Amino acid sequence: MRETDLIARLLAPLATSRVARGLTDDAAVLSPPLGRDLVFTHDVLAAGVHYLPGDPPETVAAKLLAVNLSDLAAMGARPLGVLLGLGLSAVEDAAWLTAFTTGLGRGLDRWNVALWGGDTVRGLAAAVLGMTAVGQVEAGTALSRSGAQPGDHVWVSGTIGDAGLGLAIAKGDAPADAFLLNRFRRPEPRLALGRALVGVASAAMDISDGLLLDATRLAAASGVAMTIDLARVPVSAAAAARVVRDDAGLLGLASAGDDYELLFTAPAGAAPQGATRIGRVAAGAGLTVVGIGGAAIAPGRLGYEH
Amino acid sequence: MRETDLIARLLAPLATSRVARGLTDDAAVLSPPLGRDLVFTHDVLAAGVHYLPGDPPETVAAKLLAVNLSDLAAMGARPLGVLLGLGLSAVEDAAWLTAFTTGLGRGLDRWNVALWGGDTVRGLAAAVLGMTAVGQVEAGTALSRSGAQPGDHVWVSGTIGDAGLGLAIAKGDAPADAFLLNRFRRPEPRLALGRALVGVASAAMDISDGLLLDATRLAAASGVAMTIDLARVPVSAAAAARVVRDDAGLLGLASAGDDYELLFTAPAGAAPQGATRIGRVAAGAGLTVVGIGGAAIAPGRLGYEH
Repeated sequence: MRETDLIARLLAPLATSRVARGLTDDAAVLSPPLGRDLVFTHDVLAAGVHYLPGDPPETVAAKLLAVNLSDLAAMGARPLGVLLGLGLSAVEDAAWLTAFTTGLGRGLDRWNVALWGGDTVRGLAAAVLGMTAVGQVEAGTALSRSGAQPGDHVWVSGTIGDAGLGLAIAKGDAPADAFLLNRFRRPEPRLALGRALVGVASAAMDISDGLLLDATRLAAASGVAMTIDLARVPVSAAAAARVVRDDAGLLGLASAGDDYELLFTAPAGAAPQGATRIGRVAAGAGLTVVGIGGAAIAPGRLGYEH
Repeated sequence: MRETDLIARLLAPLATSRVARGLTDDAAVLSPPLGRDLVFTHDVLAAGVHYLPGDPPETVAAKLLAVNLSDLAAMGARPLGVLLGLGLSAVEDAAWLTAFTTGLGRGLDRWNVALWGGDTVRGLAAAVLGMTAVGQVEAGTALSRSGAQPGDHVWVSGTIGDAGLGLAIAKGDAPADAFLLNRFRRPEPRLALGRALVGVASAAMDISDGLLLDATRLAAASGVAMTIDLARVPVSAAAAARVVRDDAGLLGLASAGDDYELLFTAPAGAAPQGATRIGRVAAGAGLTVVGIGGAAIAPGRLGYEH
């Protein structure tokens, strides 16, 4: 499929916002909403690195959108639009592109986000898919990683470690489970929770490289110490059926990547909906992990260091 | 070089704007300027496709920035910030990354643009570099491709075809010439001209795939016919020394890619500085190319169709 056909047949029908100008100009033009700050993030998914070449193209599109919207969720932002950088190899034929853009369109509809523009490149050895997402928050209210205070509680949304188990299934290294596979291929950006955390959370981020590793990052950004109780880490029924509930099993879940859940801190007394309290913040620095027995343990690894 | 080192040592020093939040949050946060529209573009450069693996990394960074800023120039916008998607292979070692970020920093300084954020991916077969650029224009004044009117004149900035000759030099297919090679490796975004065209030009775009091909796109977007006089197409002294000044030679220059000059239309009587009048707009559709002899000719190709 030629670029002109790709744009005219598959992408332009998704670019219905006035901002996109029908994808016929050199750039998109937005009249910013008054009284809002704009929030910008850019994430890249590469075939063979972040997803498997055999993953259904609809889910690749859904994941590309979700990982970007997850960053907006972590800031408490509502998404407005995205720009798409499609770096394509010979593998992404017309059928793949049709399925990919179908999945993208569904995601844009579901999250009420507009396609504003982008670029397409051919001739790569493997696909590299970039996306920039733009969102809005009430001026001055964006969340950050740096506001955690001693005495705060530590919270996490959803369940932890499912996507890591799903990756093993996608690779053929573990028996099938639709829930876990879906958690790897179709993460859910926690946009509603993120917006609800504005004015409630003292610090927030999304978990992409493992709960424990990202917790060390949040603690470092805030200049505080953080303790996480492994016994409190929320585990799905599907994960519980596969992983022994001991320190090693829970550490495996808490250091697996691709959760795209929100990790946040809030003053003691706050009771955010849809989240589980897993720890506490203290003065100092660094992460302490408390095992099921109640004693601090030393994890072998915290997550995916790039 | 690990991602944390790349960010901390090479990228964070460039991200001095408050918007970037020191690259420690999940996203950048901008308080939009009042009374302005924001302009968004995203372009991708791939090693082996848009630049040669042996090109100096400083010039790769300069080109990545320039091709994005060129889109902002085409809209009459002033750049504000960029987000960077670094897809890296084993070739881009610490020395390459240091040189790349040095070149990027120089470009950001020169054009007064901020680095707001981005993402890094490892393990690709070859580098794929994405950038999103954000600019601003007075509300309602952004240029477009769609405003050309019958009777308008057609203009182009700079000189045409130099970068195509520079590519041949970079490939080792033509004798060295510093000016032409530089025109391929370091295009100049025509930002000052673009801003000066607000309120003057009826339509504008930047030329990336060949003057003639991009002219057909502008004519189509405006729903008009366009005539270009090959004899008026501006040619640099360095290009004139290499290319015979006949229809075939001029067609070669006018269908070469990577010019990153501005193509625009303006009502008869306008006399924009720094540009050359090369044709006219009429009612109808399609592009007519007039050869040196004054008769319409049929070009074999118009530019780079993707």
